[in-house]
Amino acid sequence: MRWARVEVNGEAVHGIVEADRIALVEGGLFDGGLDGGGARTGQTVALADAKFLIPLEPKTFYAAGLNYAEHVIAVAKANNKEPNIPTDAHIGYRANNALIAHNQSIIKPSDASEEFQYEAELVAIIGKQAKNLSEADALNCVFGYTIGNDVSERAWQRADRTLWRAKNTDTFAPMGPWIETDVDLDSLTTIVRLNGREVISFATNNMIFGVARYISAMSRYFTLYPGDMVWMGTEGHAENMKLGDICEIEITGIGTLSNPIVAEA
Amino acid sequence: MRWARVEVNGEAVHGIVEADRIALVEGGLFDGGLDGGGARTGQTVALADAKFLIPLEPKTFYAAGLNYAEHVIAVAKANNKEPNIPTDAHIGYRANNALIAHNQSIIKPSDASEEFQYEAELVAIIGKQAKNLSEADALNCVFGYTIGNDVSERAWQRADRTLWRAKNTDTFAPMGPWIETDVDLDSLTTIVRLNGREVISFATNNMIFGVARYISAMSRYFTLYPGDMVWMGTEGHAENMKLGDICEIEITGIGTLSNPIVAEA
Repeated sequence: MRWARVEVNGEAVHGIVEADRIALVEGGLFDGGLDGGGARTGQTVALADAKFLIPLEPKTFYAAGLNYAEHVIAVAKANNKEPNIPTDAHIGYRANNALIAHNQSIIKPSDASEEFQYEAELVAIIGKQAKNLSEADALNCVFGYTIGNDVSERAWQRADRTLWRAKNTDTFAPMGPWIETDVDLDSLTTIVRLNGREVISFATNNMIFGVARYISAMSRYFTLYPGDMVWMGTEGHAENMKLGDICEIEITGIGTLSNPIVAEA
Repeated sequence: MRWARVEVNGEAVHGIVEADRIALVEGGLFDGGLDGGGARTGQTVALADAKFLIPLEPKTFYAAGLNYAEHVIAVAKANNKEPNIPTDAHIGYRANNALIAHNQSIIKPSDASEEFQYEAELVAIIGKQAKNLSEADALNCVFGYTIGNDVSERAWQRADRTLWRAKNTDTFAPMGPWIETDVDLDSLTTIVRLNGREVISFATNNMIFGVARYISAMSRYFTLYPGDMVWMGTEGHAENMKLGDICEIEITGIGTLSNPIVAEA
């Protein structure tokens, strides 16, 4: 099942994607627990006309950061350093101010460099309060999965003491288009296209530490809550995005997240 | 004016602290903008009997991290490194799951080391949406100030790739007891007491980068929202907290945040 969140008459409404329409639903995304929101209103909107919102207003925005071997090696090489492959599932954080929805514009700040890049990520959405989960039980608290673009300004990432503006500037975290609840992690492929040209493709689940391992490790110390989300990192080397480009991230079985790059006003 | 948030009949209610009582108020903390919540209900609770909650459920939990020179030097010395004084106001992040209120227990995990330490911090609460603020205008978006204890497990802080469990474990972020809106930053002194014994005292505003500088820098890239908060870092070297200790942090003119240290069940 695919859960979208769209703007209808100025209000945010959840809905179920069915073929080319979205069936609107009453109430919050987790009103039905891991089964999702409340009753259908009977109203639908055409997928083509929908004004997408981020699929949920997340509680805590967790991010794995370095979690694919080739990406770790590519980043190290770009910085003339030896690659340092993570040996444990140590989670990081991003900021909700940066989130935008499917089709919304990624705004490139006027002082950003040319090294303005996408990072295609699988995003796990937590649907159930959880603590001290074993790795075998960890996925039982997952509501579903969506797609994230962890937009990164590499000059700032190298220069700054933290990732504050390099990865958390307003509009630097597109996510969507919706949450897919029926996912076979091992069957997923992530594909990035710039203006329709494929720039990278990789097996989504080829992570150093998978979703279950991260959630289990986190839940030893943190209570996880419905609405928390975990961005799982990206693979490979990225190209630069230029003004006017359209960046599309597809994860097969989930959908395609598309966002244009525009200049700061 | 002092804005507390307390539990009354199982509900979270904001209130104004007046002498030894809290006058309860209707609605949300920012319903009156920078003047605070709604109308008084006429009901009061005794300060001594109040069950304090965190003074707000924050939106984004920003943290300056290293922001006092002696602390940077002490941390470097403990790690046999040269001190690296920050040259710019680069903000970091903490997680809301870690927050607890005045009088609630800091739970020391069973696998935490002896290096389990307090960090006494001034916390600025944002009350107004803001972007691109000059340093001169930056404090105009601040609703008030409270006190934070950025509890830190130093062995994890040294060993881990991120600060995930070292600083974001459940209960590692006590804050309160309330928000003070009338604050003269230059007149504040921060004092930490362990079991009543003073362990450190410092001029609160003796920061490398002050509140206005941080907010101005952040607002260049981030939209700030009512309910965001900025923890401003701590000074000096900390002692270890042991099970059974009570850690009190006073910031003169604001109040005293007190929390006992207990073992994980």
